[in-house]
This record gives sequence, C-alpha cells and structure tokens, in this order.
Amino acid sequence: MFNIAEKKIGKDTIVFKTPVNIQSMASIVGPKEGKSNLAGWFDVVVDDDMFGEMTPEKAERRFQTEAVNLAMDKLSLEYDSVDYFLAGDLLNQIITSSITASIIQVPFIGLYGACSTSALSLGMGCCMVDGGFAERVVCATSSHYQCAERQFRYPIELNVQRKLTSQYTVTGSGAAVIGKKEGFAKVTHFTVGRAIDMGIKDANIMGPAMAPAAADTLARHLNDTNRRPEDYDYIVTGDLGSVGGDIFKELSKRNGYALDDKKYIDCGTFIFKGDKTVGSGGSGCGCSGSVLCSYFAKRFEMKEISRILLIATGALFSPISALQSGTISGIGNAVAIESVV
Amino acid sequence: MFNIAEKKIGKDTIVFKTPVNIQSMASIVGPKEGKSNLAGWFDVVVDDDMFGEMTPEKAERRFQTEAVNLAMDKLSLEYDSVDYFLAGDLLNQIITSSITASIIQVPFIGLYGACSTSALSLGMGCCMVDGGFAERVVCATSSHYQCAERQFRYPIELNVQRKLTSQYTVTGSGAAVIGKKEGFAKVTHFTVGRAIDMGIKDANIMGPAMAPAAADTLARHLNDTNRRPEDYDYIVTGDLGSVGGDIFKELSKRNGYALDDKKYIDCGTFIFKGDKTVGSGGSGCGCSGSVLCSYFAKRFEMKEISRILLIATGALFSPISALQSGTISGIGNAVAIESVV
Repeated sequence: MFNIAEKKIGKDTIVFKTPVNIQSMASIVGPKEGKSNLAGWFDVVVDDDMFGEMTPEKAERRFQTEAVNLAMDKLSLEYDSVDYFLAGDLLNQIITSSITASIIQVPFIGLYGACSTSALSLGMGCCMVDGGFAERVVCATSSHYQCAERQFRYPIELNVQRKLTSQYTVTGSGAAVIGKKEGFAKVTHFTVGRAIDMGIKDANIMGPAMAPAAADTLARHLNDTNRRPEDYDYIVTGDLGSVGGDIFKELSKRNGYALDDKKYIDCGTFIFKGDKTVGSGGSGCGCSGSVLCSYFAKRFEMKEISRILLIATGALFSPISALQSGTISGIGNAVAIESVV
Repeated sequence: MFNIAEKKIGKDTIVFKTPVNIQSMASIVGPKEGKSNLAGWFDVVVDDDMFGEMTPEKAERRFQTEAVNLAMDKLSLEYDSVDYFLAGDLLNQIITSSITASIIQVPFIGLYGACSTSALSLGMGCCMVDGGFAERVVCATSSHYQCAERQFRYPIELNVQRKLTSQYTVTGSGAAVIGKKEGFAKVTHFTVGRAIDMGIKDANIMGPAMAPAAADTLARHLNDTNRRPEDYDYIVTGDLGSVGGDIFKELSKRNGYALDDKKYIDCGTFIFKGDKTVGSGGSGCGCSGSVLCSYFAKRFEMKEISRILLIATGALFSPISALQSGTISGIGNAVAIESVV
C-alpha cells in the first residue's frame, strides 16, 4: 500500500495577498442532472441533453458557452470587460473551451487537469488577478456524458454494463467571473496538485486512481496553512465517487485528518445521491464545476456557509495511454473559498 | 477577407513588474532535426526517434522528461527545488506532460494552446514568479512526428502524400527553468493570444489557419507596448511554415508593421530550411520549444542578440472536430525576451 505520509509535504499552497472575489457563478446542466439530488439548485436545466445539436460534442459547446454568458449576464458584463478566459474540458485538445474562446474573443488560457480543471481554472484565474495581471477573468469547465463515454470508454449506444466503480459523467458546465471588485465570496488559497500514480490501469476505476492525490493535496494544504478540517464547513472533493471517497477518507484519517460525513462532501456522490444507475457517482469537469457554481455558490450567497475547501480531482490518462496499458495518475487541485462578511 | 484591423486592440499585454529570469534552457531532438538547418545547436540529438521505446507516445515522454532533466541538471537542481511544472503537448489529454509530472512529482499546471503552448507555458510560468507565487518554475513542451501524424492526420505507415501546405511535426522537446534568481536572459512581456477562426477546415492547412492570430497578437503587443518591429532583433513565429509566414507578413504589413526577412524568422521554416520533404515547414509544440531553447537561448548566452518577440502559434482543433467539419481556430501567444546586461 502506498504510504501517503512518506510523500514530501512542502510549502506548496498559494496564499493570495488579497483574496480574489467571486463576482458571479453560473451553472447549466442536462435533464438527468436537473432531476438529481441537486434539482432546484442549478441556474438552467436543459431538457434536451443534445441541446438541439446534431452531436454531443457540439452540445457540450452550447453548455459551456451558455454558462459563460450567464455568468457574465448576471453582472451585465460585455466580453471586452474581461481580461482573460481560463478554461478546460475533457475532450481531446480541450476543443469545447477552444471554441468558446473563439466565440467570445477574450484572450484564452487553455488549461487541462482532467476533472480537476474546475479548481485549476479558478486557482489560476485568481493568480492572474492577485498577481496584478488582470482586473477580471472568467473561468469555465464543462463535460458531457455522451462525449466523455465515447471518447474515454465506449459509445453509449453499446450499452456496456457499468462496473460498481464506474462513474457517470455529468452533462453540464459551471462558469465563474472573478476579480478585484467585490463579490459574494472570495478565494483565499490555492494548492496546486501533484500527479500521483498508483498503478491503476482501468478507466472504470477512476475514484481509487484519484483518491490518493486528493488526500495528498488535503494534507499539503492543511499542513501549509496550519489549518485543520474543523476550520472548514465542508471539505469537498470533485468526483471521487463513493468508492474513491471512502479511500480518500481512510487515507486522510491515516494522515491525521479524520473527516466525518457531515464535514465531507464529494460532488460526484452528492449530485447523484439515491440514483442507482450511475455506478459510484458523478464525474467530469462539469461535475465539480456545476455543483460549485450552483449549490455552494447559492449557499454562500445565502450566508449559510462561511468556508469550504474544494479539492477538484482529475484522472490523468488518455484513450491511447489506456490502450497502451499505461497507468492512470490522479491529481487534486484545491481552492479555499470564504464568504464575505 | 478577414480584416485584422477591425479587431479590437486592447491593453492585453502583461508587463512583468520585475522581468523574470531564464536560468536555463535545454533542447533535445530526434535524428531528422539533428541533421536539419539547426544541426549543432541542440543540446542532445537522439539517433533513434523511438528513443528505445515500443511506441512513439512513450518515446515522446522520454524526450520531454529528458529535456526537463537536462534543464535542471544545468543548474544542478533537484525536483523539490522547483515550485511548479507548467507544461503541455499535442497529444490527447496532454498525456506526455501528465506523465512527466507524475515522474518528477512537482505540482503540475497543465496547459494547452496547441503548438503555442511553448510561449503559453513560459508566459504563465513568468506570471507565477512575478505574481509572487513561485521562486522557480520549470516549463516544458514537446511533440513527436509519428504521434502527431497518427493522431491528427494519418498514421505515417500509410504514406499519404503531403500537400504543399502540410507541415512536418518536429520530434523534440524544449524545457526552461525560470525564476527570481539571475539568468542569461529575461522575459519582460507576455501577450496572451485570442482564438481566431478563419473558417479553415483542413488539418493540412495549418499555417494559414494560424497566421491571422499571430498577426493579431503582434499588433496587440506592439500597440500595447508602444513598440515597433525595429525594437526587436527578431520577430519569431512558432510554426506558420512558409505559406502561413507569407500570410502573416502580409497581414502585419496591412497593420502597419512591415517585416523583412532579416527581422522575421518562423521556427518551422527555419529548422527545416532547405529540406524538400517537409512541405511548408516544421510544426508542433516541440518546434518553437526546441528552437527557442537551442538556437535563440545560445545566441542570448553568447550576447549576440538583445531582444526577440516569440509568437508561438497554435491551431485549435481536435480529430473529432475535424471529422465533424469543424473549423480550425488559430492562436498566438507571445513572450518578449531580452538579454541581461
């Protein structure tokens, strides 16, 4: 067994000189997500997961572009009032984000951290603002069940039986406008993940592949900041699912950070809670992206929570690396978000 | 015809508060590149483009990891003395960079700007240093002819005839260590590119797809900085090739910036100058990456040049978007590099 405690724990956490304000967040999801455990929290639910397009790839673009537009509309912003667009997605060559970038014509910083891209884009966006390089940026991620399945595993038309460890990619997108001007919440810290390879080769076992990286990031974050889990209302992981989530809790406990089920939420498990069709839970950039930009954003707006740590998790592999018997690394990127008082 | 002059020209260029020092650069290329017009400039030439591996994807990893190791070795650095690893490549899910990240265990910021990732990673690395988030970072990009061809176009075994506009992906990698401590050159400015879509759909016509974005970035950079081409020893583009390069020069001339052939160098045209087998020139992340980290790095070290603008160019598409008749956007990311005096 991999001993997480043996990993070097360094000073890897960025503490923003001035916490970066979250000015708006927007979420848009497909029909399954709209009827999920988080029904009622999303800004927009699209009844047709094809969004009126001929291919799911084109549908995903609509989801992402609409999320960006909605986040901007909430502030009545035009594209030219935004300095940078930081985005990524799961599709080859992050094509969804590239096309959104070509539509909105905002200088584009393409990012890839698999499903951890939600926190990566938010964290890097904060670096651009806090570093003095931008007044305001927009960050976005998205995913689509059909595109992700056919790219990474099998086309859904094959009806391949799901494993208990399989996860179900969320169809949806989350977008955030962050900047110097006041907002409803603020990002205070950013802990960049490390790629940790546990030797897992099966693209249907993502949670266990990512859990050690999430535990590594949590341990580095808490160590760097001298914080404890008690300092957060919630420790939130991106899409470990129920199987990966249990491993994350066990590894974190061994690291000295016990997390009970009131403290710990996994977006993937949370969104599809009670749904027997999804395997171990939801996944995808759009999973943590849309849950952060709906449920957590609104609870921050309602002043119901004061501080969370989002550790978005990603599985770093490609369909080709999987065919070549490559192992799947996990990564966890974390952002600490606080309410404004 | 697209009128570049109609595009909004904003204040999009980042001027680093303290120019970020380039402490070391390393380049490693395959056999064809080792015998090219730039023979003698690279740190390492590998005689076997498979680098002893069974697949070209695995070979590309060797190229990138070795470039990173070499850049670190030049400074006798250990991995734990580097704060972040910023890297990207052309392969699906930037798998080359992800695997390097899992080997070196440095917190990983995955980037994707197609072949423009060389300047994107350098520019974003500088933001991390100048923003006060890092003392030292390592940036890397790579590409491999066989992987890129079979992913984006056809397996090389098919011997598909090249078009005159086709380009030849460079097998190689460039890596740079940048940070606060002194170096042999410094990055002063970073102009983030915009995704510009000219409606081109053919993955064999990349130069013309990217040229307008490069011209847009040049115009925005010069406008933002109140500089003229005369302020640079060289204006360098990444991989427009001869066809794209001519379009770039024509568009830039219309924008009021005439570039003669002494001032203007395209890395793709330059590396394979005189080689009739490559179509319009070299391409790939490893093209501008390896040329910057060899020829230009060494000329900076020898104090032969004092200032260049590198506009690394990328074509934003995916094999799936191409099959779905999607158009190919171009992007140009620029970094201004100066000698230290």
